[in-house]
Amino acid sequence: MNTTPSHPTFGILGARPRFNTLLVGDTTYLPAPERYESIFRDIFARQYYTNQGPLTSQLEQRLSVLHGMRHVVCVTNATIGLIMAAEAMELRDQVVVPALASTSVLQSLAWAGLEPIFCNIDSSTHQMNIGHVTDILNQNRGAISGILAVNQWGSICDAPALRSLASRFGIHLYFDSVHAFANVVNGASIGSLGDVEVFSLHSSQIMGGAEGGFLCTNDDALAARLRNIRSSYGAGTFTAVAKTSNGRMSEAQAALGLLHLDDFPQLQSRNLALLQRYESGLEKVSGLRLLKPSDTCNSNYAYVVCQVDESVFGMSRDRLIAVLKAENINARHHPCLEASLAYIAPEEDQLQHSVDVIRNYFQLPLGVDVSVHDVDQVCAVLAEARTYATMLKKIEV
Amino acid sequence: MNTTPSHPTFGILGARPRFNTLLVGDTTYLPAPERYESIFRDIFARQYYTNQGPLTSQLEQRLSVLHGMRHVVCVTNATIGLIMAAEAMELRDQVVVPALASTSVLQSLAWAGLEPIFCNIDSSTHQMNIGHVTDILNQNRGAISGILAVNQWGSICDAPALRSLASRFGIHLYFDSVHAFANVVNGASIGSLGDVEVFSLHSSQIMGGAEGGFLCTNDDALAARLRNIRSSYGAGTFTAVAKTSNGRMSEAQAALGLLHLDDFPQLQSRNLALLQRYESGLEKVSGLRLLKPSDTCNSNYAYVVCQVDESVFGMSRDRLIAVLKAENINARHHPCLEASLAYIAPEEDQLQHSVDVIRNYFQLPLGVDVSVHDVDQVCAVLAEARTYATMLKKIEV
Repeated sequence: MNTTPSHPTFGILGARPRFNTLLVGDTTYLPAPERYESIFRDIFARQYYTNQGPLTSQLEQRLSVLHGMRHVVCVTNATIGLIMAAEAMELRDQVVVPALASTSVLQSLAWAGLEPIFCNIDSSTHQMNIGHVTDILNQNRGAISGILAVNQWGSICDAPALRSLASRFGIHLYFDSVHAFANVVNGASIGSLGDVEVFSLHSSQIMGGAEGGFLCTNDDALAARLRNIRSSYGAGTFTAVAKTSNGRMSEAQAALGLLHLDDFPQLQSRNLALLQRYESGLEKVSGLRLLKPSDTCNSNYAYVVCQVDESVFGMSRDRLIAVLKAENINARHHPCLEASLAYIAPEEDQLQHSVDVIRNYFQLPLGVDVSVHDVDQVCAVLAEARTYATMLKKIEV
Repeated sequence: MNTTPSHPTFGILGARPRFNTLLVGDTTYLPAPERYESIFRDIFARQYYTNQGPLTSQLEQRLSVLHGMRHVVCVTNATIGLIMAAEAMELRDQVVVPALASTSVLQSLAWAGLEPIFCNIDSSTHQMNIGHVTDILNQNRGAISGILAVNQWGSICDAPALRSLASRFGIHLYFDSVHAFANVVNGASIGSLGDVEVFSLHSSQIMGGAEGGFLCTNDDALAARLRNIRSSYGAGTFTAVAKTSNGRMSEAQAALGLLHLDDFPQLQSRNLALLQRYESGLEKVSGLRLLKPSDTCNSNYAYVVCQVDESVFGMSRDRLIAVLKAENINARHHPCLEASLAYIAPEEDQLQHSVDVIRNYFQLPLGVDVSVHDVDQVCAVLAEARTYATMLKKIEV
């Protein structure tokens, strides 16, 4: 006689996982081999490998047109881009950053000799809380030389409000737009939100160049300084700068960037379709809130981020991640995206709200290896996890 | 009736140049296309582009064996390698560097918040003058935290003397070995001369990886710190460091490095043959002295460096370079290798000797595009320039 189980089976209880292999679902993307072989053959034929080669110039030009920006400066990675930006603007003392800030953001400040001052993030969007930024600027007048705003999760923060604050306090405003490639706000492309905006072409981003990054600015003098800081020899008008570095982009990086750029619109549409599928699949799962793209008319839709309300969902974020992992679903949160947690002292009451938000979010799989059917299965597991939360949270793991 | 010219014709006098096209003669080298295509196809098949990938690990291992070192840490370029080294050793205040120091050396100190203190170089070798280093350390006891020694022109400086000084004064000693790949001294490979040694894989170097570099150390703790500074996530034992960066080497860089490494012994032999040809071709040209590899048993022989004694040769270094350029011979000196000149104040009498040396050297072509016949022609032009120096130095250019 067969026994029907009284509840769905779960991998965490020892059952076979729903997915036979790990559903990775990051944004890593690979152009067709014949295209990269052709472009690499050209690089080797030219024997021009680095230092503002023809492909890097072409990528800068295409990105300039795409963003409607006067200057795009390609670099070998976004971390050095952030350091270069701080150096080019000659920031001093303190810089305001959101409580959700990556290793790259915080380390760029360390290398530039700057101290981060954290502001709260809004729980609904994970973007900087403007009221808190205002309070900080009012309290710290003088010691703060800039705001490093982060456009989190394929959306953008309240840039007009930040611009108005920066102008009022006479400080610099620049953006980490590593997550926000291709956003369009009120008809204007991202890129011109602040004095300078920094983007990444890391292979984990929606627009990839293996490693790589670029900076956008409309300020001619700042662009000249950035080009002179990027390399001790090289491109553009000579400008006296105190420091130069090696932030040169290689032709190999530019080649991958150009190929990726061709394919980006398709990837973006595909992301949107999957994100909408997640939205409908999760709308009835109480205690789980999917972040919607905020303050943008055209996100890259590359991030499926959920906020868990443990009191309603019945299970902690970390337990839920364990349940999903046992089904071979790559649910995750990234220590390197929340590096700020190591900087925020437990007694900083005013940031406690942000810390709680950061401790209760996670990302779900999205990308070229994820199908609509996969999304349906993930949503089904989440709904079942909600239903059986009381039981699942008691298991020893 | 034909008139026979009373002297050889010179390009600078309007004659046809000796070389129809520019004899570039730098060390840029390109492996055979089918080899890089095969290795790149593997990278794309693995979809592993960066962050301590299998090729980077393989390159580190091969370089470890080659140098007999416990640790090789590959980085995306040598400048970031030099910055990482200063940071890993927690250098403070002042660092002794030679009066012939590159932009990369000086800028790495600037980023690490350090001040360079220049010591003289020996005119016969262009290496650091140990007597002057000793004087500086005796005079500045306390404020100097390290020596950044430079192994100039495919040779090495007096490393044992520097080690003994570093030990006596309790300071760090590290090396810029960008020019010195593959040197062997007293049976021991380069790499272990100081606390850490920094090498370059820039495409202009004898060992290339488009851009790229590596650090050698036998100190386990220092290696762990370097690996943690190199990337905010990643490779090796976790070690608390104040700063991390993005110095990750890409698989594309490692691929080129591995291919180049295979071919290095052939390139080295070829360089040696050409250098010996230059030596015999120039030995009777008075006022011109070819630097010989110093303090090394096995140079990479990648640099043909001549010192001009204007009072004997009869023409200035810069005039001679102009004469050679007019023959399509790429004689040159590199502003980025002598960036120190911009730092040394004219009133620094004690460095005047070094400044004179630096203002009177130049490099001659060497590399895969240079033949023995080319070398003979270059030597012939130099001998003729010496003979007709009095006339040539008067020409308006």
